[in-house]
Amino acid sequence: MSKAGNQYLKALMKLSKPYYAVIFTNTRTDIENGYSEMAQQMEDLARQQPGFLDFESAREHIGISVSYWATLQDIANWKANTDHMFAQQKGISDWYKWYKVRICVVEREYEFKK
Amino acid sequence: MSKAGNQYLKALMKLSKPYYAVIFTNTRTDIENGYSEMAQQMEDLARQQPGFLDFESAREHIGISVSYWATLQDIANWKANTDHMFAQQKGISDWYKWYKVRICVVEREYEFKK
Repeated sequence: MSKAGNQYLKALMKLSKPYYAVIFTNTRTDIENGYSEMAQQMEDLARQQPGFLDFESAREHIGISVSYWATLQDIANWKANTDHMFAQQKGISDWYKWYKVRICVVEREYEFKK
Repeated sequence: MSKAGNQYLKALMKLSKPYYAVIFTNTRTDIENGYSEMAQQMEDLARQQPGFLDFESAREHIGISVSYWATLQDIANWKANTDHMFAQQKGISDWYKWYKVRICVVEREYEFKK
């Protein structure tokens, strides 16, 4: 590994307590049918769940939403939430043309602020 | 863990060969100064690097770019790329108000297509 690359990995401090990221990448259909309201409701509801840490979202050509969680079990519990399950069904039937879910362990992080 | 949650984790197949995700979340300054061209150039250049797997990006209130890599070393090498280092300097001096970099191991994934 190059010296600069090596320094970089040291700069991105390895977390003593890793946490989880769920990367949800998707493309939408043309069907609105309450999508925006439901997306906001689901974000609000996720924020109230045990183990919830953070949520980030943006949409252009594709949508990317990343939610962060303390444990794998917190993710599974949120997935199994009754209201969330209803939203997921509507997502499959109406709103999403394609999506990909990735469950990741966040091992290192670094923040910059001006 | 609930039964539905448990089934969900089984549905998200655990990868026999995990790979890496770099989640780059950011807010921009008002300074354009070649940002869009550079962002495109860096995406093009990243795609040519050894170990590059995929790239996803969207911007609304915040920007989220996720690049996917085969190994941690591939990430470090890309970070240390001379042209990329120049872009990173400009990012800090001009383009970004705030950013956060998270390096993650992708352990499970699931894809849906209509």
